[in-house]
Amino acid sequence: MGAVRDVPVHPEVEPLAFLLGTWSGEGHGEYPNSKPFDYGEEIRVWHVGKPYLGYASRTWALDDGRPMHSELGYWRLKEGRVELAVTHPTGVVEIEDGELDGMQVRLATTAVAMTPTAKSVTRLERDLKCTGSLLTYELRMAAVDQPLQYHLSAQLTRA
Amino acid sequence: MGAVRDVPVHPEVEPLAFLLGTWSGEGHGEYPNSKPFDYGEEIRVWHVGKPYLGYASRTWALDDGRPMHSELGYWRLKEGRVELAVTHPTGVVEIEDGELDGMQVRLATTAVAMTPTAKSVTRLERDLKCTGSLLTYELRMAAVDQPLQYHLSAQLTRA
Repeated sequence: MGAVRDVPVHPEVEPLAFLLGTWSGEGHGEYPNSKPFDYGEEIRVWHVGKPYLGYASRTWALDDGRPMHSELGYWRLKEGRVELAVTHPTGVVEIEDGELDGMQVRLATTAVAMTPTAKSVTRLERDLKCTGSLLTYELRMAAVDQPLQYHLSAQLTRA
Repeated sequence: MGAVRDVPVHPEVEPLAFLLGTWSGEGHGEYPNSKPFDYGEEIRVWHVGKPYLGYASRTWALDDGRPMHSELGYWRLKEGRVELAVTHPTGVVEIEDGELDGMQVRLATTAVAMTPTAKSVTRLERDLKCTGSLLTYELRMAAVDQPLQYHLSAQLTRA
């Protein structure tokens, strides 16, 4: 009862179906006032036949496996625009909007809300590209009074 | 590598540890301009040793099992206040704030952001109560020009 049945992808998000699956790989991050770091990452994208895709990412330190960042959210495709609605465990929720060009997506933050104790994030830009078996992204971030700049990049393969 | 290890709950969220686990049960919903409905629900709450709990809920229609709502997010406990940061597949992200009283939590929306195509939600209030093996909640909602009013209630048991 309530199990996720074998249903077709909703036509509205069919152009995003290349994201579906479990992806794993490694990335590199840097930001002012912190040491550059390397991380492992797993990204899961799933669907239930409705006009959105579920999205979960978690990362861990490559040296000792301790959990680092994670994020949870949903992908939508409406009126030709990609919408990503996402929650960060730092107490930040965020709406990103962007364009889909084949299997490339370019997203940028359009709205942020946060808890009173969250570390302030003002803008993310995410360029994501898929070649079928390989998923790569670059993420730029403006946060804690720093201007928008390179923060993360990673390469993942379908598990 | 990167597997979630058997780590203790972070002391900061230890008072919320009663939420941890997989819960399943049934609920009832109503709202102006839609038929009252009964639903099944599964709630998963997990931790990775960091100062937050992961949160996922999905619901389905009791008559034919079709998926209904879902939501994803994180629970935090900061400066004596409960913070829930949550994403809805309708393109709405939301911050809720509230009080913890033993195993009861009363939350209310403090900030909402949404995509241009989202159905507008302006406020949620969530009263959640745990007795150890039973988790119950009532949710009130102000949305699409309707004033704040009863929307959902459910009873779940630990799976």
